[in-house]
Amino acid sequence: MKIENVCILGAGTLGTRVGLQSAISGYNVSIYDISQKALDGSFQVMKKILHQLKKSDLITEDASVEALAKIHFTMDSKKAVANADLISESVTEEVDIKKKVWKQFGEIAPEKTIFTTNTSYMLASMFAEDSGRPSKFCAFHFHDVFYSRVVDIMPHPGTDESLIPILEDFGRSINQVPVFVKKENPGYIFNSMLLALIGAAGRLLTNEIAEIEAIDKSWMVNFHMPMGPFGILDSIGLDTAWHVTHNRRDSASQAFAAKLKKYIDQGKLGEKTGEGFYTYPNPSYKDPDFIK
Amino acid sequence: MKIENVCILGAGTLGTRVGLQSAISGYNVSIYDISQKALDGSFQVMKKILHQLKKSDLITEDASVEALAKIHFTMDSKKAVANADLISESVTEEVDIKKKVWKQFGEIAPEKTIFTTNTSYMLASMFAEDSGRPSKFCAFHFHDVFYSRVVDIMPHPGTDESLIPILEDFGRSINQVPVFVKKENPGYIFNSMLLALIGAAGRLLTNEIAEIEAIDKSWMVNFHMPMGPFGILDSIGLDTAWHVTHNRRDSASQAFAAKLKKYIDQGKLGEKTGEGFYTYPNPSYKDPDFIK
Repeated sequence: MKIENVCILGAGTLGTRVGLQSAISGYNVSIYDISQKALDGSFQVMKKILHQLKKSDLITEDASVEALAKIHFTMDSKKAVANADLISESVTEEVDIKKKVWKQFGEIAPEKTIFTTNTSYMLASMFAEDSGRPSKFCAFHFHDVFYSRVVDIMPHPGTDESLIPILEDFGRSINQVPVFVKKENPGYIFNSMLLALIGAAGRLLTNEIAEIEAIDKSWMVNFHMPMGPFGILDSIGLDTAWHVTHNRRDSASQAFAAKLKKYIDQGKLGEKTGEGFYTYPNPSYKDPDFIK
Repeated sequence: MKIENVCILGAGTLGTRVGLQSAISGYNVSIYDISQKALDGSFQVMKKILHQLKKSDLITEDASVEALAKIHFTMDSKKAVANADLISESVTEEVDIKKKVWKQFGEIAPEKTIFTTNTSYMLASMFAEDSGRPSKFCAFHFHDVFYSRVVDIMPHPGTDESLIPILEDFGRSINQVPVFVKKENPGYIFNSMLLALIGAAGRLLTNEIAEIEAIDKSWMVNFHMPMGPFGILDSIGLDTAWHVTHNRRDSASQAFAAKLKKYIDQGKLGEKTGEGFYTYPNPSYKDPDFIK
């Protein structure tokens, strides 16, 4: 089947980015949200991203105008999904909300529509049945679309296998690198590994083996990377990191969650609040002298 | 104190690289080994590295000749250490050998000499006492000197703290980035984190969540890195990785160790044998099409 029309559910960070990249790649995109404010915010973020892409010569002014013209923002669920070949759902990460949204869209989506969820912390099997069409349902998980271009394709036990190559082709067509996850796994592939790295960094800190800067420096210098695990945590958000870490019951995770909580209680959530392990917009790890 | 003369014990991979970089940075270097063959091999490797540095415009022909002229290879322990300000020990990773070597050099080294061990898998406290001068003894651990330029400074409980700034300065003077490890930790900083990453990759493989290529691709694309965990394992050597993994008693590590063993039994030790998870010299992950 040929995908032409993409419907995004949820105008948050990832929905916005997936929608924008789809439009840049020539698809017609409808962005659905229950909040007009969220839709307006999404439009503003898209303009910002396009501005940055233009500054980096990654898109022309004409292509940028064309992309925005292909995007339609709406609070009308029926209009949003009317001719959708593919739904990419990025609504709030709460299972009851996901269930409700998928029940709603399962009832109104055309027969042809492929259902995908962008959930980061849940599994498709937790709400695929609610859509009424579990065989047409698959996890299709983006990272940040523009810098980290992996898209995970992770079927649940009831997914029709014929969806896989369609999603692989669609993923490539929107400038992503599709990777196949053979069976359901919390954290897909990359996030599982990232979490292990962050856990190890957390243990080094809570066991008082090394300071934050020494830990980040080790990673940055040896792997020639622009940030280390604590810089990464600041960009993820310490609240998100706390949520994931706190849910792991081992004592090392609990100790690190307690450490994160201290920052959170002081309003230090990372880059988005101007302070986390580092202070922004000019964190010390971006200073060339940091790795000397 | 001013360091002028560096004595390297053990002319293997790391001893050779630390010795060469020290000479490039202007130090007088003696390389000691019990095997003439090892010393000859070390000299050949140095010439190869210098050739590559010249090709990359990282060193001039004159500086390269000057560096080699500062290096003295010897099987005579007394000559090796005669005027040493600092010993960097990189002998075989067996505790009895380390103990023996440190006893020997503790007896003949000048009073001024700082003792450092480059051990990757042991702790300085396991043989510092054997040197007879534990307060002048500290772990000073290199990664690969030229690409990965972190040097860990990790005191054992008996290390005199005044050594730390001396080692930091010396580390910087030989183009490394010193990081301070506050107390003894197996794996220092970077290796602890790398092992966690590799463990997570191993679990994804042994739990049949994803294939090797999908796992590596996820890491490479999202972090813009030239290789993923299995490419890294091939460069470390599957035998070394098996040794470390096998020593961890949890079931996930044991399952991955068993997987590694299958490769090892077929002679597939990684890059050094021409095959591991990938085949060399042209592994598929280096193909630009790999990350599409």
